[in-house]
Amino acid sequence: MLLTVDFESAQPIYQQIRNGVVQGIADGSLRDGDPLPSVRALASELGVNLHTVNKAYHLLKIEGFVKMQRSRGTVVSIQGLKRDSKDFMDAAGSVLKNIVSEALTRSIGRERIVGIINRYYNEMEGKNHE
Amino acid sequence: MLLTVDFESAQPIYQQIRNGVVQGIADGSLRDGDPLPSVRALASELGVNLHTVNKAYHLLKIEGFVKMQRSRGTVVSIQGLKRDSKDFMDAAGSVLKNIVSEALTRSIGRERIVGIINRYYNEMEGKNHE
Repeated sequence: MLLTVDFESAQPIYQQIRNGVVQGIADGSLRDGDPLPSVRALASELGVNLHTVNKAYHLLKIEGFVKMQRSRGTVVSIQGLKRDSKDFMDAAGSVLKNIVSEALTRSIGRERIVGIINRYYNEMEGKNHE
Repeated sequence: MLLTVDFESAQPIYQQIRNGVVQGIADGSLRDGDPLPSVRALASELGVNLHTVNKAYHLLKIEGFVKMQRSRGTVVSIQGLKRDSKDFMDAAGSVLKNIVSEALTRSIGRERIVGIINRYYNEMEGKNHE
């Protein structure tokens, strides 16, 4: 897994780390049972605070993407993700409504938004089957 | 325009007001030149602080959805929205990438995400042509 962070971004670093791990799971570069780097190693590699990596890992644990094992540290664990995923779909619906409404005010048609969705699915599903 | 806020939501109230106005512009219930309610009237109607409404209106102004006129207060003004909308598309792309990656981890296919996009476009474009 290649994790990078953008220090210029308005998005908090811990959120970027969280998103990077979820993207790694999505595209198959991280699989169930794979260990994440230790907090110390990742903090050092990215040049960020230990606290920032801890916060990202804690969020991933709460969301059900990883678990902490005494022997192996933080490992990917997606068995527990709720398959009905109602909370996720509710949150995604709210975010997508805002994107669609802002797109409409700018005369951006659905084909451009759907095009982005399809591109990311293709990219990540493609990697997943490599 | 019918603006409502959800006090139980994790989303800040000023952001909900901002989103409601953008949705009103998107579905045509707010048109270019229409005045928004005065800060005092809206705060009273929603049962929120004056400061909260001010913050929402200020954000809408920075984003280019409204302008302040001495004579008429805050009015919808979407002439100035950049039509190429690069910043919006960049931000939307980043948000959509997170939604797609989390959907993939939950085995949620593109047809469900695209379905939500199409539903919102249909709803808002439908209202816009009533």
